[in-house]
Amino acid sequence: MKGIHQLAKHLDISIGTVSRALNGRPDVNAETRRRVLEAAEELGYVANQSGRSLRKGSTNVIGLMIESGKDNADNSDNFFFGVMDGLQTVFARHNLDLVLLPCPADEDPLEYLQRMVARRLVDAMIISATQRVDKRIDLLIKTKIPFVTLGRSTSGGSHTWIDLDFAGVANSAVDRLVSKGHRRIAIAAPCTDINLGTVFTDAYQAALERNGLAFDPALVLRAKSSESGGYSVGSELLALDPRPTAIILIYELMAIGLYRRLAEAGVIPGRDMAVIGFREAPRARFLQPALTCYRLSLEDLGVELAETLLASMPDYAETYRTHARNRLWPLELVPGESDAFDLLT
Amino acid sequence: MKGIHQLAKHLDISIGTVSRALNGRPDVNAETRRRVLEAAEELGYVANQSGRSLRKGSTNVIGLMIESGKDNADNSDNFFFGVMDGLQTVFARHNLDLVLLPCPADEDPLEYLQRMVARRLVDAMIISATQRVDKRIDLLIKTKIPFVTLGRSTSGGSHTWIDLDFAGVANSAVDRLVSKGHRRIAIAAPCTDINLGTVFTDAYQAALERNGLAFDPALVLRAKSSESGGYSVGSELLALDPRPTAIILIYELMAIGLYRRLAEAGVIPGRDMAVIGFREAPRARFLQPALTCYRLSLEDLGVELAETLLASMPDYAETYRTHARNRLWPLELVPGESDAFDLLT
Repeated sequence: MKGIHQLAKHLDISIGTVSRALNGRPDVNAETRRRVLEAAEELGYVANQSGRSLRKGSTNVIGLMIESGKDNADNSDNFFFGVMDGLQTVFARHNLDLVLLPCPADEDPLEYLQRMVARRLVDAMIISATQRVDKRIDLLIKTKIPFVTLGRSTSGGSHTWIDLDFAGVANSAVDRLVSKGHRRIAIAAPCTDINLGTVFTDAYQAALERNGLAFDPALVLRAKSSESGGYSVGSELLALDPRPTAIILIYELMAIGLYRRLAEAGVIPGRDMAVIGFREAPRARFLQPALTCYRLSLEDLGVELAETLLASMPDYAETYRTHARNRLWPLELVPGESDAFDLLT
Repeated sequence: MKGIHQLAKHLDISIGTVSRALNGRPDVNAETRRRVLEAAEELGYVANQSGRSLRKGSTNVIGLMIESGKDNADNSDNFFFGVMDGLQTVFARHNLDLVLLPCPADEDPLEYLQRMVARRLVDAMIISATQRVDKRIDLLIKTKIPFVTLGRSTSGGSHTWIDLDFAGVANSAVDRLVSKGHRRIAIAAPCTDINLGTVFTDAYQAALERNGLAFDPALVLRAKSSESGGYSVGSELLALDPRPTAIILIYELMAIGLYRRLAEAGVIPGRDMAVIGFREAPRARFLQPALTCYRLSLEDLGVELAETLLASMPDYAETYRTHARNRLWPLELVPGESDAFDLLT
């Protein structure tokens, strides 16, 4: 690999001129720029931005930490691909690049993040799947790395975050089911300490009470956020006596496993059991009867995440100074047929 | 953020001892190590691996370049999540980390890779979606960055690659259909210059000729590798006169759109039209009738990719010296019902 010295020597031009030509500065004539770029291509010149970054103290790279591992491979959907698109649209305005940092399933997320921070790969971080207590947030605050979280947490005080409006979904789904005459409404909730699980179950409980219904802990079915989790929720649901007439799911892919389990028992969504899914997702789009669920624009969410992050970075804060530090991201009801039946008629 | 100097000063221990303790060296007593680690935690110490990397000339990070953008978000499946799992299993043995480098859809992949190379983020690269002529390969050779490609190319001579056995699938699918009496067999092929498209259509043509069937270019239907691509393939297929009795798809998600288009015309896969899909994929798993397709272990493929790459890196070549530089990755037939009917009976 050739550096700028070899390039200048090869062309018999000063290093300063070569540098200005490579950086697209206007004070180099067109012919010289053409010669420099051609030679750079021919000699395989690549700017050493690592040295440059160290001097500047920045990398111009933003990291998005995601979870990898076999379970996530089987259950992945287009969520992060969609969000990435919005993130990159914003970062491109500022010549920032996005890299994905996949934390292996068998590694502690805090240790993983510590190593990534130590590698100085990125100027700022986006973390997701926030836990109720999430030490990653404390680490990022302590190391003064700008960050935004997708999801709230009890950790970290007043840091920047965006969160899907899980409480809004729980409210809307309970109200919708109650208006159709349901009184015994179950929910499928995560079996981990992820923060959204607490938000969701608290809001479900409050919505029941607001509608004059008693909260029954037996109707909170804990399961993995996966197709197989949905299947096991189906088994639990069928075994409950008296059987709930409706269920609200916390995760999009649960619907697929739940539908299968219900089909095995001859129970048809929208006829024998009302089902409201969570996010409208490509893999659940082909379920019959069509799933009642909630829609959000992943791209818009990505744009919002990126702008919220930039507002917290000294180099970009001025541009995004009017930007909110926190935002609950709304989801829009997509009525399907899976909760079509009406107990009141 | 505190560095090693502040840590040593705080503890009143020499920098050398602190460094040895942090690096887990045996020549530090247990009590000292405990004190150093506790103080490091308390003070928010993070090793500056960026400086260390520059001195060593390495980052201990491997990049996997993928395509992002809206189309890919809509059509993403678990492919790269699955492969990542295998990659990370191998990289973890050597304390290497994987980062994903998502090339935006509106950016030229060569320019994107040039910038990533310039950023010196990674020690080595994995690139995918290789084109028939792929200048990224020339760039990586020229800049002496170890790499492996997922997919072959006419570029780059004898570089390291792994490729799915698209020719094997085309052969197997044609033979299977011919044995069931089909004579007019269409294929859906990519509309881009991706190398696998050429491999697939060439093998299809050869397999027809081996079976004594003439090649008819009108039966090569070009489409996007997506659900909507599959839908448009369905429209073209239904319009052909005489209508083919069978179709082989190059991409897993095409099956979903094709099934929908056929259903609209009252044409049932496995009864009125034989359909053979490509990779067995989660999103196509719920199609009725079940899709005949091909299976591969994404995790094993990831392991193979990682080991092939390490074999080409000076620091790891000795460990993996018996490893092949190239490999065609086999896929295993998963018989379904979508090609169940037999024209011979």
